[in-house]
Amino acid sequence: MEDFVFQNTAKIIFGKETEKKAGSEIKKFGGKKVLLHYGGGSIKKTGLYDRVISSLRENGLDFIELGGVLPNPFVSLVRKGIRLCKENKVDFILAVGGGSVIDSAKAISIGCNYEGDVWDFFEGKAEPEAAVPIGVVLTIPAAGSESSVVTVITNEDLLIKRGYHSDALLPKFAILNPELTMTLPLFQIACGASDIIAHTLERYFTPTKNRDLTDRLCEGLMMSVIKNAEFVLSKGKPDYDSMAELMWASTIAHNGILGTGRKEDWATHKFGHELSALFGITHGASLSIMFPAWMKYVYMKNLDLFVQFAERVFSVNPEGLKKEKIALKGIECLEKFYIKVGLPTRLSETEVDLSKIDEMAEKIVSRGPVGNLVKIEKADAIKIYRLAI
Amino acid sequence: MEDFVFQNTAKIIFGKETEKKAGSEIKKFGGKKVLLHYGGGSIKKTGLYDRVISSLRENGLDFIELGGVLPNPFVSLVRKGIRLCKENKVDFILAVGGGSVIDSAKAISIGCNYEGDVWDFFEGKAEPEAAVPIGVVLTIPAAGSESSVVTVITNEDLLIKRGYHSDALLPKFAILNPELTMTLPLFQIACGASDIIAHTLERYFTPTKNRDLTDRLCEGLMMSVIKNAEFVLSKGKPDYDSMAELMWASTIAHNGILGTGRKEDWATHKFGHELSALFGITHGASLSIMFPAWMKYVYMKNLDLFVQFAERVFSVNPEGLKKEKIALKGIECLEKFYIKVGLPTRLSETEVDLSKIDEMAEKIVSRGPVGNLVKIEKADAIKIYRLAI
Repeated sequence: MEDFVFQNTAKIIFGKETEKKAGSEIKKFGGKKVLLHYGGGSIKKTGLYDRVISSLRENGLDFIELGGVLPNPFVSLVRKGIRLCKENKVDFILAVGGGSVIDSAKAISIGCNYEGDVWDFFEGKAEPEAAVPIGVVLTIPAAGSESSVVTVITNEDLLIKRGYHSDALLPKFAILNPELTMTLPLFQIACGASDIIAHTLERYFTPTKNRDLTDRLCEGLMMSVIKNAEFVLSKGKPDYDSMAELMWASTIAHNGILGTGRKEDWATHKFGHELSALFGITHGASLSIMFPAWMKYVYMKNLDLFVQFAERVFSVNPEGLKKEKIALKGIECLEKFYIKVGLPTRLSETEVDLSKIDEMAEKIVSRGPVGNLVKIEKADAIKIYRLAI
Repeated sequence: MEDFVFQNTAKIIFGKETEKKAGSEIKKFGGKKVLLHYGGGSIKKTGLYDRVISSLRENGLDFIELGGVLPNPFVSLVRKGIRLCKENKVDFILAVGGGSVIDSAKAISIGCNYEGDVWDFFEGKAEPEAAVPIGVVLTIPAAGSESSVVTVITNEDLLIKRGYHSDALLPKFAILNPELTMTLPLFQIACGASDIIAHTLERYFTPTKNRDLTDRLCEGLMMSVIKNAEFVLSKGKPDYDSMAELMWASTIAHNGILGTGRKEDWATHKFGHELSALFGITHGASLSIMFPAWMKYVYMKNLDLFVQFAERVFSVNPEGLKKEKIALKGIECLEKFYIKVGLPTRLSETEVDLSKIDEMAEKIVSRGPVGNLVKIEKADAIKIYRLAI
């Protein structure tokens, strides 16, 4: 195990009707003037907007609001949020939505105490000195942003989707009510499951030797996500118990605990980000396409780890099989899972313009090789995209 | 999954030579006048005491000290610590040791701001209003007290060992350096592994229906502990990598995450506490005796869960076997593990006076039935102790 520091102070409030606690939690964390940040109209249709507003009012909280966050959230809206917060002296941001809304809120939170442009953080030109505290009411199990120190924002002028890490980005609290997921389209649930698994795989396929416990926890989490996602998709509609498992898994997969004591990889996310930035591919779908391709490119150099994955996560029977064959069966099982829940596994299933592969590969390595299990250079990136065709 | 709130703010600093950070961490958390609390002389023999003292001095921290904590720590020493802290206006307690030292430090920390006797908390007569902050340098992977909200103290006048829960008891930071475990006797390592597994079993064998992810995490953790404990014991001495896995497992097993969304049980710990209070049985050994007995008493009423335990944790092959037989094989495997690492599994291997069974059973239920999977009354408690003979 490698040395590490782990701390995650986010308070998780999990269960039925917990969105009613949003106001009292904000008060506990010292908020008085709130920015309510959300996406499209879905929270108004479902009544969630009204319940949250009531909770804020009951607790005597003043608020302004900014809706309209899109998937792969834009830096332009972040900039608008920062202006709003500065003008209105906002001291707490409540994100009501999924990963995109939370990530947008996080970017706003570090921009409020910074004089320059918020994209500076994503360019590595600035570090936040302070952030407006954030709370979350989560509506989709996926990104894990509710208790992570990461935000991923798209600069629509530069056509770049990029992540930024800082302890300042950790939400103070996250409200997780699986009831809020009952109206989600099945494709979104599948994309969420893919995102959760991807967060785990980025921490699982790493070069760190001397590892045991964290592998076991990663494997257990992936088995649970696969089981519950398959159940929901086969049933054709979300049920509370399965969505509860997926929701808690989304948080644990990304709260840092599964990455303790090891290097993480994160190459595959970068492949996915390019597909989202250029062609608007949903994040989870970009990962169900790119993970099998990346795995096929790297497995031969890390055979034992891929054999372990196959045997433990998918119960591949190793009897009479060579290691290479076992490893390939594991990758095949993962692809079959994606297909079963309705996700694409090839670029040819999407509208992606294949002539852009060179451009995407160039962008991926624009700040040097990516990944840790295998260092991915531009030539590797091109081959991996081609494996995904 | 049941509704829950989860938050664990403890900062974990894991790795080689991390004890040197004790002073700077205390400073970060605002400490100026420190009580250094420890057990017997082992930390002086190994040089740990000197390294910690140096770290305090380098950071300009004033300190007093109180050693002498025994296993199953006594309330008398806690009272002495409270007097010392009050007289010297201590504002931070550093526990250097294992679960007993940490638990003693925790009890001191809540006693410092309380006018009455500290045992009041354990009798349910008082709630702490404030606590002196605590930091930990951990020397043995076992109790998980380094990031738990529990303390277990023995009242040597009343011959009662009792736990107390409060969020005020959570340490601010815990330093985990596996190098510090290299001089531990093998029996202590085995007892530690037993304690970690017991903390997990108390959260695993519960009546909560609709469960999946947390079961998987519990199972993965137990498999890792069993593997690494067996490896150390078979090798005859601790090695860094295995001890690192055990150390991180001890923390995760008891930081609350494995109990999310479910009722916990905790009957078996009470059986063990009586053996420790009356006969000084080491905590981990009391649990390797009492868990198999408790399991044999309750498994028939919860067959599916015990079958799952057998198949997943010990890979019991269910083919051609009835559920009852599979469940029993799982219990047998657990007993074999305990025996393999040198732990007792029967009261008859110890100096326990069997004529005291009635008295112990009486004490266990003195505040009502215990446990959640099965409610244990006095008559059940007697039968469980007899199964352990």
